[in-house]
Amino acid sequence: MKLFSRRDFSATMGKGITATALLGGTSLACANSTKQDKKKLGIALVGLGSYSTYQLAPSLQDTEHCYLAGIVTGTPEKEKVWQDKYDIPSKNIYNYENFDTIAKNDAIDIVYVVLPNSMHADFSIRAAGAGKHVICEKPMAISVEECDAIIKACKEAGVKLSVGYRMQSDPYTKEVKKYVAEKTFGDVHFVSSDAGYISRGNPNQWRLNKKLSGGGALMNMGVYSIQTSIYGCGSNPSSVSAQEFSTRPEYFKETDETITAQFEFPTGAVAHMMTSHNANGNRLKSHCSKGWFELEPAHSYGPISGRTSNGNVISFPHKRQQALQMDDFAKHILLGTPNVAPGEMGKRDMIIVEAIYRSIAEGGKKQMLDLGNMGIVP
Amino acid sequence: MKLFSRRDFSATMGKGITATALLGGTSLACANSTKQDKKKLGIALVGLGSYSTYQLAPSLQDTEHCYLAGIVTGTPEKEKVWQDKYDIPSKNIYNYENFDTIAKNDAIDIVYVVLPNSMHADFSIRAAGAGKHVICEKPMAISVEECDAIIKACKEAGVKLSVGYRMQSDPYTKEVKKYVAEKTFGDVHFVSSDAGYISRGNPNQWRLNKKLSGGGALMNMGVYSIQTSIYGCGSNPSSVSAQEFSTRPEYFKETDETITAQFEFPTGAVAHMMTSHNANGNRLKSHCSKGWFELEPAHSYGPISGRTSNGNVISFPHKRQQALQMDDFAKHILLGTPNVAPGEMGKRDMIIVEAIYRSIAEGGKKQMLDLGNMGIVP
Repeated sequence: MKLFSRRDFSATMGKGITATALLGGTSLACANSTKQDKKKLGIALVGLGSYSTYQLAPSLQDTEHCYLAGIVTGTPEKEKVWQDKYDIPSKNIYNYENFDTIAKNDAIDIVYVVLPNSMHADFSIRAAGAGKHVICEKPMAISVEECDAIIKACKEAGVKLSVGYRMQSDPYTKEVKKYVAEKTFGDVHFVSSDAGYISRGNPNQWRLNKKLSGGGALMNMGVYSIQTSIYGCGSNPSSVSAQEFSTRPEYFKETDETITAQFEFPTGAVAHMMTSHNANGNRLKSHCSKGWFELEPAHSYGPISGRTSNGNVISFPHKRQQALQMDDFAKHILLGTPNVAPGEMGKRDMIIVEAIYRSIAEGGKKQMLDLGNMGIVP
Repeated sequence: MKLFSRRDFSATMGKGITATALLGGTSLACANSTKQDKKKLGIALVGLGSYSTYQLAPSLQDTEHCYLAGIVTGTPEKEKVWQDKYDIPSKNIYNYENFDTIAKNDAIDIVYVVLPNSMHADFSIRAAGAGKHVICEKPMAISVEECDAIIKACKEAGVKLSVGYRMQSDPYTKEVKKYVAEKTFGDVHFVSSDAGYISRGNPNQWRLNKKLSGGGALMNMGVYSIQTSIYGCGSNPSSVSAQEFSTRPEYFKETDETITAQFEFPTGAVAHMMTSHNANGNRLKSHCSKGWFELEPAHSYGPISGRTSNGNVISFPHKRQQALQMDDFAKHILLGTPNVAPGEMGKRDMIIVEAIYRSIAEGGKKQMLDLGNMGIVP
């Protein structure tokens, strides 16, 4: 039987004063006090690749409710560099072998798994086992089965789980979600979304290694297109069909280069998406019964740019999406605000990813989806 | 055996002075003289629906090399209205029954068939049989077989044939064709094109009647998406797959509502298109190796609007596309300039339309295409 830890407390604290009132005893009161004094939650980044280096760590300098408390790296020479740059205590530095001892470290509240896709499940489950809240970078894992295992582990450990869907915390995304919910431009009839870039770099990068990535463009950029299709329409799709295109097989030896997919929605909307490691694309456009709205760029690190058929330019002050994202998760833990990117959202997207690969394997045959409202956050 | 008519002369005249020199005799010299004095070719519009009324007739007031000389209508009450408005002599007014006697009317050089799609072949062939040059509105016909019959009839009659592809005469289209040919933004990797509108009008309109239209969104707007996909890439596709979506079957009883399709090109480019009678769409975007270019709107009556990754706005003085189109055809006849929208282009697009319908019937199965350079005009 697991001990009741401060993690369990944090996990329940989100439910508000009722949970606190229901619980009792000196140790809880003490934990509560510690938490309130501390205010900011400590995040440990697992995997110090370019996304951690150039996006997450700098973003953590801008967060209000969390901070960079620790690192977990398989590259010893990175330890000193990060320690010096971000003033990280030696006790908060881990490698992949001693990672599980992080359970004893009260300075770490959240573990952010930023490893290659195929390692997401293992480290997310280990983080949950260590009693830490988990942010799992997108795609959540490389199979629905793995997503289920992560969700189960977090549930059993009583920790919170979110997926690294930074766009869900972005004000532009929130704005278009509002248009859809409020029918600002009427009903959505058709959504077009593109997400891609031209990969010309190191042919040995992990994204091109199927064992590490689980797939190519679809696993990487395609998840953005899936997400934009869904929030551009306001519901989960009821079917998907898909096609794969290969023009540089000598470079994309193991992973998909370009994929197109088409969605039907129970609302009557239709969408098509393109994702590629061989073509640029960064767009959401929703054609509605009384107008349209679009974001282009739609999901790069920003600033995002948007327009509507009213002639309006969608514009918000630029903030690092990752800072907004990590603060949203910290507020979910600390204050009980909604989890804007829950594990179910990552699992839902992986169900769609698997259906897309299945459609391709079956020559483009339409795959029915039974998702209900899984992963839909208003 | 057909008599050598002034139509034969006009048809050869395009080949330049050599053709004139090879020919001889008083009647030819006279025809030549008449033509040169006249300068402008006389066009008869067949079918006085909204496109003739609001686009072609007004455009013919702006043309330099042709003019509105006659009309052919099945609605007697329109005769007087048009005669008065455009000062059309009674002898140049026909109905569908006496249409073939137009052969004797030297004032009519070109017959422009603007009837419902299923009537294009019949009237184009009759126009050719009457010795008149033919403009056949898009889509060229409702089957490849009909396109072949039109091409054969025009060839046998020695008359010129073009399809009503106004965008082929539009300066924005020419500009993006130049980008592709000159690789201004490098190689084209991916093209996205949308063409649609929301049909809410009279449920008895001919476009919703399969016998008259031959099909729905694909036959109507889809042809624009096919065209933009091709000139956005610079070559004919080598394969196509497609999907059909139906959300308002009570309105779209017989014809397709929304279709998506995906193309592969021998250049390595990939494209996807959307066409709909239930969603707006009016765009071409080409993602290239070194940048991008886009037109949005891409194929409405104008003004068209375009942008490139260089930060440039594509901008030309607005002229009626139909005026440019009819002048291009008149110049082709009079001066031997290229036919920018030859019958082979219309036939090629109908081959693609048929392949799209076939793919849909086969559950989205990829259809291989063997088009060579059919219909490609530099």
